[in-house]
Amino acid sequence: MAHTTASGAPRDMVLIDQQPTTFNEADALVHSSDPLHPANHICSLCRQFYTHGWVTGTGGGVSIKHGNHIFIAPSGQQKELMRPEDMFVMDFATRQYLRRPAVLKPSACTPLFLAAFTQRGAACCIHTHSQWAVLVTLICESGLQNPSERNVFSMKEIEQIKGISRGGAGSSEIAEGGRKVGNLGYFDTMQIPIIENTAHEEDLRDTLEKAMVEWPEACAVLVRRHGVYVWGKDVAQAKTQCESLDYLFQLAVEMHKLGLKWV
Amino acid sequence: MAHTTASGAPRDMVLIDQQPTTFNEADALVHSSDPLHPANHICSLCRQFYTHGWVTGTGGGVSIKHGNHIFIAPSGQQKELMRPEDMFVMDFATRQYLRRPAVLKPSACTPLFLAAFTQRGAACCIHTHSQWAVLVTLICESGLQNPSERNVFSMKEIEQIKGISRGGAGSSEIAEGGRKVGNLGYFDTMQIPIIENTAHEEDLRDTLEKAMVEWPEACAVLVRRHGVYVWGKDVAQAKTQCESLDYLFQLAVEMHKLGLKWV
Amino acid sequence: MAHTTASGAPRDMVLIDQQPTTFNEADALVHSSDPLHPANHICSLCRQFYTHGWVTGTGGGVSIKHGNHIFIAPSGQQKELMRPEDMFVMDFATRQYLRRPAVLKPSACTPLFLAAFTQRGAACCIHTHSQWAVLVTLICESGLQNPSERNVFSMKEIEQIKGISRGGAGSSEIAEGGRKVGNLGYFDTMQIPIIENTAHEEDLRDTLEKAMVEWPEACAVLVRRHGVYVWGKDVAQAKTQCESLDYLFQLAVEMHKLGLKWV
Amino acid sequence: MAHTTASGAPRDMVLIDQQPTTFNEADALVHSSDPLHPANHICSLCRQFYTHGWVTGTGGGVSIKHGNHIFIAPSGQQKELMRPEDMFVMDFATRQYLRRPAVLKPSACTPLFLAAFTQRGAACCIHTHSQWAVLVTLICESGLQNPSERNVFSMKEIEQIKGISRGGAGSSEIAEGGRKVGNLGYFDTMQIPIIENTAHEEDLRDTLEKAMVEWPEACAVLVRRHGVYVWGKDVAQAKTQCESLDYLFQLAVEMHKLGLKWV
Repeated sequence: MAHTTASGAPRDMVLIDQQPTTFNEADALVHSSDPLHPANHICSLCRQFYTHGWVTGTGGGVSIKHGNHIFIAPSGQQKELMRPEDMFVMDFATRQYLRRPAVLKPSACTPLFLAAFTQRGAACCIHTHSQWAVLVTLICESGLQNPSERNVFSMKEIEQIKGISRGGAGSSEIAEGGRKVGNLGYFDTMQIPIIENTAHEEDLRDTLEKAMVEWPEACAVLVRRHGVYVWGKDVAQAKTQCESLDYLFQLAVEMHKLGLKWV
Repeated sequence: MAHTTASGAPRDMVLIDQQPTTFNEADALVHSSDPLHPANHICSLCRQFYTHGWVTGTGGGVSIKHGNHIFIAPSGQQKELMRPEDMFVMDFATRQYLRRPAVLKPSACTPLFLAAFTQRGAACCIHTHSQWAVLVTLICESGLQNPSERNVFSMKEIEQIKGISRGGAGSSEIAEGGRKVGNLGYFDTMQIPIIENTAHEEDLRDTLEKAMVEWPEACAVLVRRHGVYVWGKDVAQAKTQCESLDYLFQLAVEMHKLGLKWV
Repeated sequence: MAHTTASGAPRDMVLIDQQPTTFNEADALVHSSDPLHPANHICSLCRQFYTHGWVTGTGGGVSIKHGNHIFIAPSGQQKELMRPEDMFVMDFATRQYLRRPAVLKPSACTPLFLAAFTQRGAACCIHTHSQWAVLVTLICESGLQNPSERNVFSMKEIEQIKGISRGGAGSSEIAEGGRKVGNLGYFDTMQIPIIENTAHEEDLRDTLEKAMVEWPEACAVLVRRHGVYVWGKDVAQAKTQCESLDYLFQLAVEMHKLGLKWV
Repeated sequence: MAHTTASGAPRDMVLIDQQPTTFNEADALVHSSDPLHPANHICSLCRQFYTHGWVTGTGGGVSIKHGNHIFIAPSGQQKELMRPEDMFVMDFATRQYLRRPAVLKPSACTPLFLAAFTQRGAACCIHTHSQWAVLVTLICESGLQNPSERNVFSMKEIEQIKGISRGGAGSSEIAEGGRKVGNLGYFDTMQIPIIENTAHEEDLRDTLEKAMVEWPEACAVLVRRHGVYVWGKDVAQAKTQCESLDYLFQLAVEMHKLGLKWV
């Protein structure tokens, strides 16, 4: 009696983009005994994010850039069950897949992850469907918190804001015009832009890239009625910023319920 | 000093429906070293669902159809403590129990699970008592969200809706009249019918089957003041749809608290 | 460098109530390799209840009656760290301690646990400080849900009510006057009495015993601004009723927030 | 392929304050097979506190005083991933670091932890960013619960208050003028002062120390829009008081939503 699932199906060697890749070469990209190897790390992060309610129902995703390799969790799979052999690996320079599990689909978030790696020099990007992120975008949309700020989430004078960097990953390199770098201070106003959702996730790329240009200090972009993209210069920064933002989103929803202003 | 519980009681060979079944034959149906064998899988799913608050207080249930065998968790038992030997096994064609643990009662949900397997070609059906599902049915009942939609939960333009299939399990086979198959799109309106609760769970069958006919695109039926039944073509689809729906139910309750409309 | 805590302190043989008990005899009462032995079971239950938020901050407690022995978790200790050797053991007939850990205090809940064992024939009693239980007693006190029911929590037509027994433990033995036994039905009204809190927990005994007499169908008593006592004929019944009640308390608070009536 | 993180970086012998310390001497301070050794205990506490949402996004912190040694978790690190070798160790008398992990920063909370150890004789101090603590300070600030108590959180007649000590750690030693010692009673009013947040955490020291003087019965100080500092005579007391307070903060927020008064 054999029990197979999508992620349990046999995975054969794949030929991609004219680059013959042997089974062993492609597989070696995702096999390591190091728990911090990107293929292993994405799996443990997904298990942790599932318990936070960030990636239930196959939603959300994670990508890590390691050198010239981009590791990406597949689309439409149960995130808490991810295994290293489920990972896609893309060459950053050529955008060609070096490894592509036969029966899985690449994540529709891929162009958005690449935007963070390219525009911000990020090395990790996390996408969650956190209900707190969605509710914050709905409250902004309603204009009930601040009628003039429907497309940006602003908050200040909350200690946890100090966990958020200016300019996202690699801010020290990309800062210009004398803009301050490092993390936000307690009296600074944190601003996270909100873009409108689209029918297809990959169609978010243009507005997400535009938001990155217009909000050079933001380390995240909220997507209305959808969730949030958060990046960082490494896994630790992306993850802790994602935690701090989720904390702030939840706090903002509770404050709104209590009739308190965010700014 | 012996400590026995209902589920820890000795289980003897049982004779069911004139079909003599030896202990070994009946037991072999639920013993496997494969964690994805239905008897093992139901146990691990129940433990996970308990942590979500879906099956506390012995509420809720899970059934998996594997070939011609229906595996069902027993009634009135602590779901987080389920063991493979607690499972009932029914023959799909004859509706006769092939295995029936001596001291346990079959689930009152059995006719409802069978409806999903028969009418929708599902292979897994999950029943939860999620408080969010119950609250959604109460808000609909109150008419405070939409006075003209007391018997259906509708939601649109929330990304997580894309985790919900049209027509439930096996939609590609049963779709007719040119109806679109696959998952819902972001701009589609998700509609989950709500049926009224009855004194005895098995009496829900007629209205549940009627709802399945009337709402061919639904992959779930809400039961007022009770919970939800969710099905899928396999365990992964049933489980991830159950997660997506629970996410949407909770989001809907929070939106209602904030004075926001679901559609 | 020695690190000792209250529960890590050495425990010596104790002489209690003129009954000389050797170290081995007293210790044998709490040492077993059976995970369902009361001394082990209380520890695993406490760990589980801690994750539910029922016994944080050393609050709450659990007692199991096994034959003529009453096993009780100590007072003022971290419940998620309980070990079998922390357990008090009392003789049910004589009310004398057969085992009394030297550096620990017996639970102030002891007379209340005994009331459930004596008056209701229970074999397990759980006391939680669940915030949902406390909030329900506060809403009743306010009269905002029902001004004429400040001393009883009533709910009906919620499926989870069917997880609650009539008359608590041993109801079949104590039922009289033709009262129905078994669990509540969907259309029955569940009623849990609320007693006022006192400065000292042991002083709750009289009103708790009075409530047990006046509400023979109740399997639990709420204590205003404090928590709840829930009992059952065995651990499974006490635990699952405690889970069902907590589910109902939380649902009731959410319903009240949404302006919905409990009955 | 090497994967290094901040906390995974190699740690060399460090020379601190002219006191040459060999690798082995400094390291011996944090290496022990005893799970209750402060260096191990802080790690397990941080993992537990992370699941409570108290120290996400690198927020919060813990310090334990053991004899003349102060153990402190580092600043800006993921608290659920702490390892014994990440700990700073300070000499209580000289305030000099006996161990200072090369690539980590000492916690900005250090002067505040020291205030609890010095002024109150505490041996453990916990700092959380609990959202419930922050919300309580916001509700007080708004004056909506009690316009005359913006700088103190007061609550009474809730059983869990009995989990809070008078005068914090070592109260029996520092109590004077006949003030009662021990824990609060049910009819006592618990009062936790609230101080205003500052741009830099270390600048809280003066107002925190002032609050300790002005509120000698308090075992904690709330920091507006930031979190809470809780101390105790040992880890058990600090931790269980922190749990009891967090329970009370959450209950207070829920009570406020329901229109109920705290006192």
